[in-house]
Amino acid sequence: MGRLVAQYGAAEAAAAIRARALPPEFAAREARHERPPDLTGRLNAWYARLAAARPAGDLEAGEKAGARLIIPGSPEWPTQLDQLGASRPLGLWLHGTADLRFACLKSVAVVGARAATSYGSHIAAQFGVGLSESGWTVVSGGAYGVDGAAHKGALAADAPTVAVLACGVDVCYPSSHDTLFAAVRQQGVVISECPPGVHPTRARFLVRNRLIAALSRGTVVVEAALRSGALNTAAHALSLNRHLAAVPGPITSSQSAGCHRLLRERKAVCVTTPEEMIDLVGVIGDDLAPQSRVPAVSRDRLNESTKRVLDAIPARGGAGPASIAVAAGVSLDTTLSALGGLAAAGYIERAANGWRLRKPATSYRKASEAAALQPPLTAEAADQTDDPPFPDDSPITQPAAEGLHP
Amino acid sequence: MGRLVAQYGAAEAAAAIRARALPPEFAAREARHERPPDLTGRLNAWYARLAAARPAGDLEAGEKAGARLIIPGSPEWPTQLDQLGASRPLGLWLHGTADLRFACLKSVAVVGARAATSYGSHIAAQFGVGLSESGWTVVSGGAYGVDGAAHKGALAADAPTVAVLACGVDVCYPSSHDTLFAAVRQQGVVISECPPGVHPTRARFLVRNRLIAALSRGTVVVEAALRSGALNTAAHALSLNRHLAAVPGPITSSQSAGCHRLLRERKAVCVTTPEEMIDLVGVIGDDLAPQSRVPAVSRDRLNESTKRVLDAIPARGGAGPASIAVAAGVSLDTTLSALGGLAAAGYIERAANGWRLRKPATSYRKASEAAALQPPLTAEAADQTDDPPFPDDSPITQPAAEGLHP
Repeated sequence: MGRLVAQYGAAEAAAAIRARALPPEFAAREARHERPPDLTGRLNAWYARLAAARPAGDLEAGEKAGARLIIPGSPEWPTQLDQLGASRPLGLWLHGTADLRFACLKSVAVVGARAATSYGSHIAAQFGVGLSESGWTVVSGGAYGVDGAAHKGALAADAPTVAVLACGVDVCYPSSHDTLFAAVRQQGVVISECPPGVHPTRARFLVRNRLIAALSRGTVVVEAALRSGALNTAAHALSLNRHLAAVPGPITSSQSAGCHRLLRERKAVCVTTPEEMIDLVGVIGDDLAPQSRVPAVSRDRLNESTKRVLDAIPARGGAGPASIAVAAGVSLDTTLSALGGLAAAGYIERAANGWRLRKPATSYRKASEAAALQPPLTAEAADQTDDPPFPDDSPITQPAAEGLHP
Repeated sequence: MGRLVAQYGAAEAAAAIRARALPPEFAAREARHERPPDLTGRLNAWYARLAAARPAGDLEAGEKAGARLIIPGSPEWPTQLDQLGASRPLGLWLHGTADLRFACLKSVAVVGARAATSYGSHIAAQFGVGLSESGWTVVSGGAYGVDGAAHKGALAADAPTVAVLACGVDVCYPSSHDTLFAAVRQQGVVISECPPGVHPTRARFLVRNRLIAALSRGTVVVEAALRSGALNTAAHALSLNRHLAAVPGPITSSQSAGCHRLLRERKAVCVTTPEEMIDLVGVIGDDLAPQSRVPAVSRDRLNESTKRVLDAIPARGGAGPASIAVAAGVSLDTTLSALGGLAAAGYIERAANGWRLRKPATSYRKASEAAALQPPLTAEAADQTDDPPFPDDSPITQPAAEGLHP
């Protein structure tokens, strides 16, 4: 499906499935694959799923819940997901105030056992606080144990955090995490590949794990038994060439056995503090420098339409893209692109009720950091990453980056 | 000093120092060294030490304490020490029933903090038991904490263990370890480079650590703070190309911080069980096979004089080399060589009062395993390792090894 959409676009792919006839040249290419898929079987399954799909209802339910849907090319789309190649998600449902692309520019996945020990929960919370205080966003799965403790640590540090669910963003699983998810929505963002209303299954957890690994620069496994799902996330991180770290623990604890195996097989680096994790994922000469407090792109270097969009954004409350477009006198498309770039450069932030100016004292991430993420693995993905923060004008990211080191 | 003795022999080296005149060609070679030593200063220091040395008194004190002195070439000399090159000890004082060479053919150094936590002591004892039960001899430093717990674990498993001291073998340091050392002498062997009566100093501990690393196939650090002496032993193990392992612990414990640093820097392999340590140091296809219970070298393949020595060894009690030589009707030199070979092949063992036959049910180590130890690092050392278990006859080690896999 990923290859079909990548080659023909979502609309043509859907039409082909609806007509139960895949493009002959696509079928020919698939047949030459190392492990050629059962295309007839797949097509029948896709046809059945498409027949059952209610996209208009999904959008309505999402809007009702306060969620938004982004797709590759959306200003908020985290382009590092393109490294997933054919398994890149077709879209993501987002629920929360944080800008996903912006939040994940500098992010670390903190994962581990649901049945965490008090040691594991303590360490996860400590990493959540420490990473957040250094300007790194904690990405995790919102589960009991390590996940929840890591999110709570980030929230305690007044930082955004990203919870990647295996169910719809309007479904609260586990249900006792309703207060946690509400806090994440308030300060960060809850995201999912599944449409609203979808409930989690074992398969969805495993598929979800690739997103946790792909969103972040590195994954740290805090506690994991030998058959923990966190090791699946770790395997995704390795296959994406992202950094993988593991926190050691007592060898008498089975909840650390998975971490120790990763260390023993030299798949993971041993980390014992958030600082060591940042050493691993950080860009040399960047994270060693003291954090600057001014936006990464000087205002003078913004293009005309982007400046107009910036001037139209309120300092308090929030405004939606449509009203900003009207106020700025530019098209909605231009507004959406400019909003993504302005968020990535640290000028604005997403609030509960739209976009607002970012307070100058808060920390920011540099627009140029998107480029610091590793290059995509596949040729198709490469086409997608040529996606500068300000796509409606000449390249301003490069000259702007010079301004960082005056 | 090591190079002087290696090139001229101990007697000629002592004569040169006594005459305060080093061989001119030796001085010329030393001057060409990368970091040429201050030969005049060294010679003066050696002269002063030689003048203060009381070798006859040392031997008398050693004999009185029940200790024996071995030198390179002695049947009981562990030839893996030759890999130390010029820093190979000139001799070793031994006190105990175990044959040092035999005991160290398959040995692991278990080292760590004196101020061990209860976790560290527990793990050290567990490793002591586990390694011993699998036929691996535990080598350690006899200190408080990890060392003592490792020795005790080995003793609890009724196995020999080797305590390498930084003082004379007749000096009990730490003094509260007197019962432990008595048990090690009874079942294993206490060894030292220092003559009897010498007390430990900080420098002697550091110099001693190279022996712990060099005697064993690998070193495992159980617990170590960031400035622990165990990390010095670890560095020696690395520089000798021996296996290095570290046991992880809670990251909240400073006594595991040294282990975690070794893991983080990928200097050590993460091990969590004695079996994992054996996987690391074991010879493939050897330690995976179930342990055989018969001697490694078939009796038919022993040469005539060795057979005669074997026939002269009592089943109970014990006999000294001189009385064995008389009973066998061979020279003392031949007897000494044969005893070493017979011990290494698992026929005989050293008892409190001499040599005796080994009970067939006890585990044994193969003579061919001496060859499995890594090759020496230096050219001088290479001359010394050409030292088969049965030096007075044609090579019987190789064909005998075939009999192991019938």
